[in-house]
Amino acid sequence: MTERLVVIGGDAAGMSAASQARRLKGPEELSIVAFERGHFSSYSACGIPYWVGGDVAERDDLIARTPEEHRARGIDLRTRTEVTEIDLAGRRVRAVDLETGTSSWTGYDKLVIGTGARPVRPALPGIDAPGVHGVQTLDDGQALLDSLDRVGTDRRRAVVVGAGYIGVEMAEAMLNRGFEVTVLNRGEQPMATLDPDMGRLVHGAMDGLGITTVNRAAVTEIRTGPDGRVSAVVTEAGTYPADVVVLGIGVEPETTLARAAGLPLGPHGGLLTDLSMRVVGHEDVWAGGDCVEVLDLVAKRTRHIALGTHANKHGQVIGANVGGGYGTFPGVVGTAVSKVCDLEIARTGLREKDARAVGLRFVTATIESTGRAGYYPGAAPMTVKMLAEYRTGRLLGVQIVGRDGAAKRVDIAAVALTAGMTVEEMTALDLGYAPPFSPVWDPVLVAARKASTAVRAAGSA
Amino acid sequence: MTERLVVIGGDAAGMSAASQARRLKGPEELSIVAFERGHFSSYSACGIPYWVGGDVAERDDLIARTPEEHRARGIDLRTRTEVTEIDLAGRRVRAVDLETGTSSWTGYDKLVIGTGARPVRPALPGIDAPGVHGVQTLDDGQALLDSLDRVGTDRRRAVVVGAGYIGVEMAEAMLNRGFEVTVLNRGEQPMATLDPDMGRLVHGAMDGLGITTVNRAAVTEIRTGPDGRVSAVVTEAGTYPADVVVLGIGVEPETTLARAAGLPLGPHGGLLTDLSMRVVGHEDVWAGGDCVEVLDLVAKRTRHIALGTHANKHGQVIGANVGGGYGTFPGVVGTAVSKVCDLEIARTGLREKDARAVGLRFVTATIESTGRAGYYPGAAPMTVKMLAEYRTGRLLGVQIVGRDGAAKRVDIAAVALTAGMTVEEMTALDLGYAPPFSPVWDPVLVAARKASTAVRAAGSA
Repeated sequence: MTERLVVIGGDAAGMSAASQARRLKGPEELSIVAFERGHFSSYSACGIPYWVGGDVAERDDLIARTPEEHRARGIDLRTRTEVTEIDLAGRRVRAVDLETGTSSWTGYDKLVIGTGARPVRPALPGIDAPGVHGVQTLDDGQALLDSLDRVGTDRRRAVVVGAGYIGVEMAEAMLNRGFEVTVLNRGEQPMATLDPDMGRLVHGAMDGLGITTVNRAAVTEIRTGPDGRVSAVVTEAGTYPADVVVLGIGVEPETTLARAAGLPLGPHGGLLTDLSMRVVGHEDVWAGGDCVEVLDLVAKRTRHIALGTHANKHGQVIGANVGGGYGTFPGVVGTAVSKVCDLEIARTGLREKDARAVGLRFVTATIESTGRAGYYPGAAPMTVKMLAEYRTGRLLGVQIVGRDGAAKRVDIAAVALTAGMTVEEMTALDLGYAPPFSPVWDPVLVAARKASTAVRAAGSA
Repeated sequence: MTERLVVIGGDAAGMSAASQARRLKGPEELSIVAFERGHFSSYSACGIPYWVGGDVAERDDLIARTPEEHRARGIDLRTRTEVTEIDLAGRRVRAVDLETGTSSWTGYDKLVIGTGARPVRPALPGIDAPGVHGVQTLDDGQALLDSLDRVGTDRRRAVVVGAGYIGVEMAEAMLNRGFEVTVLNRGEQPMATLDPDMGRLVHGAMDGLGITTVNRAAVTEIRTGPDGRVSAVVTEAGTYPADVVVLGIGVEPETTLARAAGLPLGPHGGLLTDLSMRVVGHEDVWAGGDCVEVLDLVAKRTRHIALGTHANKHGQVIGANVGGGYGTFPGVVGTAVSKVCDLEIARTGLREKDARAVGLRFVTATIESTGRAGYYPGAAPMTVKMLAEYRTGRLLGVQIVGRDGAAKRVDIAAVALTAGMTVEEMTALDLGYAPPFSPVWDPVLVAARKASTAVRAAGSA
């Protein structure tokens, strides 16, 4: 008998799950129906800043697999079709065709929820004015690009609201498009995913790139001109003229449907799953991607992290399990990398405030080194901050700000965190060394040595 | 009472040990005498190819700390002074001043041996002819640069003997100096530190860079012209005209003194030490750097690896222990990175033949991906080969050949090897993802997934 798998959401988690399940089971064993309310499937939302900035030429470059390609692989993907209700008892979902308005029920044997995240959009006066843009979807990106065309060539002023990953990436994109760029940041320093001392380095580097960052500048209003289009952004810190405004404030799990169906949500509003990505307490319901919470392996509690790489892993695991194979997603250590122009920014594990929040006592060590041997051309400063647990010396987190080679160096720490290494153990790591790639002591090793010394000093105090 | 520490060898291991010991103990507690037969101290031999190639302007850029700087820190460093005998029973060394020829004994309480490695120099006809150069020391590098000046500008032909790290780096250097470059390789493929299938990729890329590589070309003779200067290199595969010849054949431990003193040597001719870098069976004698054998943590036996980063770690550990602190060097996993022009080459752990040699049965997986998201500018192919143990799935080794971001990605595997991870565990690693730095599945994750599948397939066969 043919089982039916229903997937809600046609992006990374949902379509990875569908594709992996299809690889394991043919259409005679498993029929797969996927609902997506948008026009597109399986695209890289993370790539939108680079498309808007002009590094990526075409919107379609960001699409990994089109709806047609999914259909050719035996997945009945229905775009512009929005699921409006999950009936768990009846094992069915109701979906509405957004073109015709007709709605119908579809039964399932197994259900995958990949409803993603929605951008935080504060209820500010003027937030819906023309010229104010989010950058969450391909449609958002296209609207922003169209909007840029309507800005004159004499003076081009962009205001980016938010100084996290999306904010700094969009600052770079607007700079590349020839705009004067102001980033309005609610917090103490940009990149709140770093500790403020490391965020300060980002702030300084952004200054150097010609990007104005205003800290402690919570937005209170967006003003429009006589043509109804955005003209300025008002904050507690002052008013900033704007020809275009980009919102990069972050996202939250899109779990409206799940909540209405009574599925279990965590403290951050994301679905809760077990190691196999099955929704807790629901045998045949699975969830992954930006709509779930994930276990932070360092803090030992759940977090919400919207990131394509996790969504793809979730989809892979769900697809394996739904397709009769086996897979688990053990959790994350909180690795994230980004760049603004040639400045690379990376973090993994816990910040100081994260460690405090879960009751961990720690020492910190911050060092400055270079990404290549000091004498090698292009050697540029790199700052590494390391947190280690008091007494045990267990690595808790690493933050890196620098130029060439800074970002992916954080992977060393990501693996060490996963393995539960101490900073003392890390000092002996056999990392790749050659003058074009590293000083003879890799910056991560230098930080580990200093952290190790700090652990000993604190322990004997 | 003041103890005396005597150090033989004024480069990375010896002077790191001396410096670290000095940090922990002042001159009133510990006097430090260091003997170095050359002119220089603490320099980066790994940087010589980049100095010869012109990327690094000055010889002195490669010197981390001059003899004067060491002396200013309370280390009695005697350059141009060669130790000719170690008298273990009498706790003294005999040294000869190479300027005056006078020799004298110096007593020690603790002895550190950091005599380094010597280049393999086969006894071939013509090997001492003008125009034939090693690149082991700063003096070698200077002699080569002087030699290049004597080659005319109309036709400049360089032959590099050896296709390992030094060989390919010197090929790049000669190319940068405007030479036609031929690399003569005894083996099946260049970069014998990789498996031949990966070495083939390096060969192809070198072709593309305009470097001619001849495999299975063991050198039998070096011919000279009427002026006595090198004119050609004769191999089993043919004769290659040469205006300059660079020897990059590798090195072996320089343990002549240690052998004469009866200190324990391993199967590769290097000194054997314990975890604290103390010579086995000798309470007050320590050794580190290119003259020792190190424990391969994957193969579980000793190897000889001449690499500055290990030498510095050894020196640090020795200095800590000699200075009354504590440190160990647990071993290596065999990580090495290199480049030839924009081609990056990396390896860690075991090759196929290494695994076979120690009785391990394994599966392999090779994948091709890119170092950035496929749509991001500059995304270039990257090939990752992974070895995993049969049944257990434990990671055994990784080799990577590619462009931007290939080399240091091997650090992920270096940490995973150190932690004893399985390739299945590696598939869940939380590695940094953003389009400029990685596809949504990092190439190492893709390789781990394929290796993991191969382990399962082999186990069920």
